[in-house]
Amino acid sequence: MFYTDRKLQYPVRVDSPNPLFARALQQAIGGVEGEIRVAMQYFFQACGARGNPKFRDLLMNTAAEELGHIEMLATAVALNLEGAPASLQEEGARDKAVEAVMGGMNLKNLLSAGMSAMPVDSDGVPFDMSHIYASGNIAADMTANIAAESTGRTLAVRLYNMTDDAGMRDMLSYLIARDTMHQNQWMAALEELGGAQGAFPIPNSFPQSLEESSFSYAYLGFQADGSVPEPARWTEGASPDGKGRLSAQPMTAMGQDPHLGPARPDSGAQSEQM
Amino acid sequence: MFYTDRKLQYPVRVDSPNPLFARALQQAIGGVEGEIRVAMQYFFQACGARGNPKFRDLLMNTAAEELGHIEMLATAVALNLEGAPASLQEEGARDKAVEAVMGGMNLKNLLSAGMSAMPVDSDGVPFDMSHIYASGNIAADMTANIAAESTGRTLAVRLYNMTDDAGMRDMLSYLIARDTMHQNQWMAALEELGGAQGAFPIPNSFPQSLEESSFSYAYLGFQADGSVPEPARWTEGASPDGKGRLSAQPMTAMGQDPHLGPARPDSGAQSEQM
Amino acid sequence: MFYTDRKLQYPVRVDSPNPLFARALQQAIGGVEGEIRVAMQYFFQACGARGNPKFRDLLMNTAAEELGHIEMLATAVALNLEGAPASLQEEGARDKAVEAVMGGMNLKNLLSAGMSAMPVDSDGVPFDMSHIYASGNIAADMTANIAAESTGRTLAVRLYNMTDDAGMRDMLSYLIARDTMHQNQWMAALEELGGAQGAFPIPNSFPQSLEESSFSYAYLGFQADGSVPEPARWTEGASPDGKGRLSAQPMTAMGQDPHLGPARPDSGAQSEQM
Amino acid sequence: MFYTDRKLQYPVRVDSPNPLFARALQQAIGGVEGEIRVAMQYFFQACGARGNPKFRDLLMNTAAEELGHIEMLATAVALNLEGAPASLQEEGARDKAVEAVMGGMNLKNLLSAGMSAMPVDSDGVPFDMSHIYASGNIAADMTANIAAESTGRTLAVRLYNMTDDAGMRDMLSYLIARDTMHQNQWMAALEELGGAQGAFPIPNSFPQSLEESSFSYAYLGFQADGSVPEPARWTEGASPDGKGRLSAQPMTAMGQDPHLGPARPDSGAQSEQM
Amino acid sequence: MFYTDRKLQYPVRVDSPNPLFARALQQAIGGVEGEIRVAMQYFFQACGARGNPKFRDLLMNTAAEELGHIEMLATAVALNLEGAPASLQEEGARDKAVEAVMGGMNLKNLLSAGMSAMPVDSDGVPFDMSHIYASGNIAADMTANIAAESTGRTLAVRLYNMTDDAGMRDMLSYLIARDTMHQNQWMAALEELGGAQGAFPIPNSFPQSLEESSFSYAYLGFQADGSVPEPARWTEGASPDGKGRLSAQPMTAMGQDPHLGPARPDSGAQSEQM
Amino acid sequence: MFYTDRKLQYPVRVDSPNPLFARALQQAIGGVEGEIRVAMQYFFQACGARGNPKFRDLLMNTAAEELGHIEMLATAVALNLEGAPASLQEEGARDKAVEAVMGGMNLKNLLSAGMSAMPVDSDGVPFDMSHIYASGNIAADMTANIAAESTGRTLAVRLYNMTDDAGMRDMLSYLIARDTMHQNQWMAALEELGGAQGAFPIPNSFPQSLEESSFSYAYLGFQADGSVPEPARWTEGASPDGKGRLSAQPMTAMGQDPHLGPARPDSGAQSEQM
Repeated sequence: MFYTDRKLQYPVRVDSPNPLFARALQQAIGGVEGEIRVAMQYFFQACGARGNPKFRDLLMNTAAEELGHIEMLATAVALNLEGAPASLQEEGARDKAVEAVMGGMNLKNLLSAGMSAMPVDSDGVPFDMSHIYASGNIAADMTANIAAESTGRTLAVRLYNMTDDAGMRDMLSYLIARDTMHQNQWMAALEELGGAQGAFPIPNSFPQSLEESSFSYAYLGFQADGSVPEPARWTEGASPDGKGRLSAQPMTAMGQDPHLGPARPDSGAQSEQM
Repeated sequence: MFYTDRKLQYPVRVDSPNPLFARALQQAIGGVEGEIRVAMQYFFQACGARGNPKFRDLLMNTAAEELGHIEMLATAVALNLEGAPASLQEEGARDKAVEAVMGGMNLKNLLSAGMSAMPVDSDGVPFDMSHIYASGNIAADMTANIAAESTGRTLAVRLYNMTDDAGMRDMLSYLIARDTMHQNQWMAALEELGGAQGAFPIPNSFPQSLEESSFSYAYLGFQADGSVPEPARWTEGASPDGKGRLSAQPMTAMGQDPHLGPARPDSGAQSEQM
Repeated sequence: MFYTDRKLQYPVRVDSPNPLFARALQQAIGGVEGEIRVAMQYFFQACGARGNPKFRDLLMNTAAEELGHIEMLATAVALNLEGAPASLQEEGARDKAVEAVMGGMNLKNLLSAGMSAMPVDSDGVPFDMSHIYASGNIAADMTANIAAESTGRTLAVRLYNMTDDAGMRDMLSYLIARDTMHQNQWMAALEELGGAQGAFPIPNSFPQSLEESSFSYAYLGFQADGSVPEPARWTEGASPDGKGRLSAQPMTAMGQDPHLGPARPDSGAQSEQM
Repeated sequence: MFYTDRKLQYPVRVDSPNPLFARALQQAIGGVEGEIRVAMQYFFQACGARGNPKFRDLLMNTAAEELGHIEMLATAVALNLEGAPASLQEEGARDKAVEAVMGGMNLKNLLSAGMSAMPVDSDGVPFDMSHIYASGNIAADMTANIAAESTGRTLAVRLYNMTDDAGMRDMLSYLIARDTMHQNQWMAALEELGGAQGAFPIPNSFPQSLEESSFSYAYLGFQADGSVPEPARWTEGASPDGKGRLSAQPMTAMGQDPHLGPARPDSGAQSEQM
Repeated sequence: MFYTDRKLQYPVRVDSPNPLFARALQQAIGGVEGEIRVAMQYFFQACGARGNPKFRDLLMNTAAEELGHIEMLATAVALNLEGAPASLQEEGARDKAVEAVMGGMNLKNLLSAGMSAMPVDSDGVPFDMSHIYASGNIAADMTANIAAESTGRTLAVRLYNMTDDAGMRDMLSYLIARDTMHQNQWMAALEELGGAQGAFPIPNSFPQSLEESSFSYAYLGFQADGSVPEPARWTEGASPDGKGRLSAQPMTAMGQDPHLGPARPDSGAQSEQM
Repeated sequence: MFYTDRKLQYPVRVDSPNPLFARALQQAIGGVEGEIRVAMQYFFQACGARGNPKFRDLLMNTAAEELGHIEMLATAVALNLEGAPASLQEEGARDKAVEAVMGGMNLKNLLSAGMSAMPVDSDGVPFDMSHIYASGNIAADMTANIAAESTGRTLAVRLYNMTDDAGMRDMLSYLIARDTMHQNQWMAALEELGGAQGAFPIPNSFPQSLEESSFSYAYLGFQADGSVPEPARWTEGASPDGKGRLSAQPMTAMGQDPHLGPARPDSGAQSEQM
């Protein structure tokens, strides 16, 4: 169950509103690396968590945090849209500068939302919930979360580099710090689940004896010239999961020509296929 | 540049065709954990790889492998649809068993594809390329790949457990083995990039001095009762990235009431908002 | 900012788990009439609310409630999946009854989520955030909310009628009651904003003198036989917004043949179009 | 059944073509507030209308009108693209002004459609038919229609404010007038269905005795500090549906800790979850 | 501009309602081969048609026809849902037959639409307007239309083969006939535009001298073994467009190693990439 | 099965990087006319091809070619982004020119991909695999491929016209040539399948005696004034499929008023509908 209060988690201040930066910030709200994604991902992972309840608590607690980040960013978008043009003309003459600014905006921020934030990315594409990875496997979920926070912090850094507005940089310095922590907390959770050698290969509940094990630790080369892959960390030495020795070999087809049978008379194919 | 031959990478055999299993296999083609996803993800990561070219080669080589996996699975879907019903009736009487089988199928496999595979998931939802994570940050890409292979192997295991068809289990034992290797190879690549302590926090090119560092290693509690989070691996000890000490604290709002200014006269708001 | 606790807003109990009902419940989570929609809609409306802050508070407070509803429903989905089949066979023989049950499931609940809820609808289609209507016009937002709760309560009633599980009916009796209140609270808010005669036509900030007013209160007939529309509430009497008299007339084209100019030489058209 | 003629419903004239305004107009075609949405929504509501046939007729008649609006707007988009740049260069030198104009265009209007309209919104996102609300409940449909016309008129007003082209303003003055009428006609239809006190709570066919009625008219507070909501129209007095008295109370969790059972051995979870 | 009347274009009769067939019919409404697609495709092609106005008229006239087909199919879906189960239980006991029928339904037809048609395909996926091909090149449009009617008639034939309901077969015999005509009419239109030798390669307005003409009529082999493609119609003889001689050759890479430069310091990449 | 090498199929060179042209090139990667579409369409058609295996080989071979085209274009996007701005400011002052360039970029190329290509179109909309037409009818597939290459070449020509960069024009001259060949090869394949008179109407396996044949070759007029369509190639003479004589007639409704029965008590409708 969730509760709210009237306040923002961290101060949001825009010294010099910029509609193009508002558009960029939309990526941190509704982009695949954004805050809706992590909020909803941790929420659904929590709802489906089985086993030790501390993972459910960890996930739902962090979901609550991320909801507050969406709120901060939505406020930042609206503040950056203060003063944005809503009209193409000014004093009777077409104003090219106004047009350039408008052309760079996400027009839906004006037309659909009246100068407010939307759950869309920086190009106006709505967020799609298929990005919520909640696999029912707690270790797989942790890898998805590390990945989400890695791309999330990369995005926040790019936004930080894009602006020199002191208010926005202050807000982003907080969000970047939180992404640092979140990368670490999901790595810590993966450690608790056994780390590289205990949790992998994910899922660790499947008996590896059932795998076609001659291919479990082999780096296969698919080069047209049939060359053996060059030596690298992934072609030799112990496997990171501690359960095999890495090797390398070129791959050639082991399977058949995949010709299907003729089409059936009632299947809407051409007569020539039957 | 890509080349092909007429053969499958590994034999695909279906002993006892099952249209419902055909539907399940669609998840491994067009689901977010499926093979289109990894094939295209590695492909686009390769195309955008900057820095040491061995990562580009590693990515593009594995993309070629995954394309062959899609082909194997598409063949498996078609073979499982052999003998599937195309008609609701049989000899004049409504056949309930036929209806039950058809009802469990992805109808588009019949209606759109004439008993063939499609780039959709097990519920007929088309794959959407927004799932291709290619961030321009090579370490973030590796975390996304570990996550993709973790959910991918989880899916393959679920498919293995769902069927007792010997042909299908043989094919899946190969795919599961390859997922084992791919989890390991992306972990190995992350090691090459410095591992937990060298690569994290991602991106490692951003000076952590610019973060709001009091929050960089703190696990924040968002419990309505204001309680301090219980001790766990993510609340104490060294951070996995080796750059801080983890701690815990309840969080309270630090920001303002986020009231925006009045609506502008030309913004299509109600008069009461102005 | 948001907070959480470990408990559900209202008890969730499933007496007799049913995987098909789990699939139906998904509509109430990720369907366009579902709880993600209202939670996120009220959240974004709150973030963009301008004018009297009590509307922001009303919206954000209700968003917090709806988040708890998603959690309840996600729990209900997982509980209904207890005992659902994960395998097509049983004791060596193909079990038709198992197949019928699996065929009726949303397979992603098994394959993607390991017997847990997902942010998808009853046919496995992921929720898409373009359904979050937050227009920047507070009265338009209220109409969208009344509509959302009207379809939402209709859905909850259909789910109630679909099951005779006492636990599920208890949960739904609570959700239906909340939808009753929410329909009423948004109607009350619209009253505060002036009701039919004060708030409409939305937006009320646009001078109606600028409309082509001969068409502002006329019901136009587009019948091929040119007939005048039959008398009805919408063809006569005072308009509900109190600003005009309704009338009816058949419509005929007032505009031109919309022929565009020839295609430009550099526009990739056929030569015949230039 | 539908018929057409060669003419536009109302004259469409563009005095001063503007590619950026063409992009903005796309929102009125393929945006969620746009004309495809209402045309198709009324069409599908008509097709599923049960009960008094006058509602089917009302809906299908208005669908025909809206189809003509799409045609008008598509013509307006094409006319605004007259003279738009198709090339980045001019006389050998990079022309910055040309680039600024092109940068502000929806490039698909050029690249996909050869200077014509498309069924996409102002940021080039295609319209998605999940926005067609046709619930099978005629009163719920009316609320959806009022909402659609409220956001639709808001959009048309924003477009009107954005341009000073006399032709475009004339066309928009007609479309705004029609939205005025459509808001009124759906309100009139809702009156016919009983109005606030007869039609609500929607659906009115569900016995309210089956609701958990202690929550049917209570405004619940989800504030972290447990405060009672402040008095407002939605916390006291008669409910708008005339069936209860509004009240207010803070809410606390009534449900359990939602811990699920352990993961099943065949479910692809980690061993630690079992 | 569009007009309507109260009648269906052709009689729609269902002798024996079948909810699974209702689901299949949805593909003909909202599938990519369905009637929304062609109705909207011809509509938008008409709106963007430049050159001889007879093509605009042809397109808009056929759009009007297709709108009537959607209406017919939507009626057929609703009639097939007559008597479909809305409840999982019957007289206190779980009824397996009811569950099997419900499991095979598109649940949204019940839950979202109250036993009516929706603009979704047979698996409940909403139609997405990106499928509306209107290229601004009239010949390219004709090829898209031939393709649309070819897959459309294939779908209608599959539906015909799926059912033995006399009413449904009568309706489909009409729709199949119309698809026959539409395939022919778009081929006739392409003939008017010059046919294979006059219209191709599309667009015919681009000077072929600007092509890298050594590759314009060569069938390239991408076989891993470097083999020359086997002789076939597409490797020898005159090209169908009458402008070249077909030939065949194996292909090898002509381009460079595509290594990009190092990542920029401000681009959010890893330090190792710079 | 697929193989790769390190090289590009054809040289890719950008003489004068242009971020706006990078955005335009994205349409050729992830637009519906783009290379992902054809690569995946031919791939899935090959996987489902039944009948003479030479069609499978033709399709899969061309799929391999198209994968190489994506790689070329992705390289071209990255090269055009060299030097693109990553920051809004320069030397402390807001730089309007920088903003105009950034405003015209697809911001996700920077924010999500770190100056690399993505599988999205020129407006940042991700490619959606529902565009992969693989019908199970080999002739229908050929029509879809002719259409894909027709719009594909149209797009490539528009890109050629848009730029005067010699490197980009060289690359596009190769891609345009390949589209010329691909249009021809799919027309050649259709010839092999019988051409207009042998393959049409598609599917040719359905007995035309089962069609409502009075409508199979009639051009129907849906003009509101009931006029007979004007004579044209599609109203008279032999049908292109050689199986009928074309004719024309105005159409009037042959079907009934499509009123459905009353709503069922348990269907969530309003009481007034029952």
